[in-house]
Amino acid sequence: MNLTHDDIDRDELERRKALYGPLTDAVRDLVDATIRTEVDDAVIREVHAEIAAATAKLRATQIDGAFGMRRAATGEQFAWGNAGVGLKNAIAPPLVIERDDTGRHWTDVTLGAAYEGPPGHVHGGICALVLDHLLGVTASAAARRFTGTLTLRYVRATPLGPLRGEADVVSVVGRKATVRGTLSDAAGVTVEAEGIFIAPAS
Amino acid sequence: MNLTHDDIDRDELERRKALYGPLTDAVRDLVDATIRTEVDDAVIREVHAEIAAATAKLRATQIDGAFGMRRAATGEQFAWGNAGVGLKNAIAPPLVIERDDTGRHWTDVTLGAAYEGPPGHVHGGICALVLDHLLGVTASAAARRFTGTLTLRYVRATPLGPLRGEADVVSVVGRKATVRGTLSDAAGVTVEAEGIFIAPAS
Repeated sequence: MNLTHDDIDRDELERRKALYGPLTDAVRDLVDATIRTEVDDAVIREVHAEIAAATAKLRATQIDGAFGMRRAATGEQFAWGNAGVGLKNAIAPPLVIERDDTGRHWTDVTLGAAYEGPPGHVHGGICALVLDHLLGVTASAAARRFTGTLTLRYVRATPLGPLRGEADVVSVVGRKATVRGTLSDAAGVTVEAEGIFIAPAS
Repeated sequence: MNLTHDDIDRDELERRKALYGPLTDAVRDLVDATIRTEVDDAVIREVHAEIAAATAKLRATQIDGAFGMRRAATGEQFAWGNAGVGLKNAIAPPLVIERDDTGRHWTDVTLGAAYEGPPGHVHGGICALVLDHLLGVTASAAARRFTGTLTLRYVRATPLGPLRGEADVVSVVGRKATVRGTLSDAAGVTVEAEGIFIAPAS
């Protein structure tokens, strides 16, 4: 894995989180508003110009290419550009993945207008994004982090709104781990997933 | 399917495309810049305030909830909030799906920093989003539009940059269609996909 060392201490890491997290939340809110707006053409054009100007300010100093994975002096790794969990990525919901002592992992996430596929429902590919990321983190905890295969069974359409993802390692044989998970709304499971994950060759 | 009738003619539809498409492109550019920026804290805070103000302007008049699927007076359907193809959705790359007379479908798409998973590579869940959408459109052309299952085999990591997705219907038996597809970079296939799609009960 390409890991960039970013020689910052805990205070500096927390300072950056407090700076960038709210900016990214504001951009997420803009993404939602861009979909749902019905204001007059003149306002659309005015906002367009304002966003272009704001973007130019941000680009005055920027990294080449994508964010990658960095490690602070504390050892903490951060992938702030990640499409699933990235603190600086307005595409990411962002997922917050939790775990208990048994190795079970879960995430509670609310998906709004920006994640729509069928009218009023979550895009099947976004369900796949949530489950791919959750199962991947679950497998990584068992040291099998490369996705081999991922199979999704769409039980019924997933409504936009509050959802829960859950995943467990069901078996580990040699370098392979099998992880199963579900995506659910309040009425039960909407998507089932099974992934085969592989440990790096030692 | 919930279909909202939007009683607009072709000229009005084209006018709205020309208005909203560039605004959404500007928001996509902002999403990228938010990930890659390294400007000073004061500039981040200034841009944050500007984006919040722009968002408030857009929200002065807005629809409740998600965009859904609409049909113009011309019969053309448009799902501008869709996470895969939506003209108003800055999360969507957006995919542009093409087809030939044989039923083969494909899409050429360039995925940048906002779609990152492993450093320098496309998030596995974003590969799934592209393939889910492409296979779904391919199946819809064969009148089997509900995703039953989707299986993804990750052959190797998919680099950020220009990619091609391709899909074909390989069999139709009763209400079920099997569709296979691939995601590729210039060096060949990175992800293989197979989906089972089901026709609505008649």
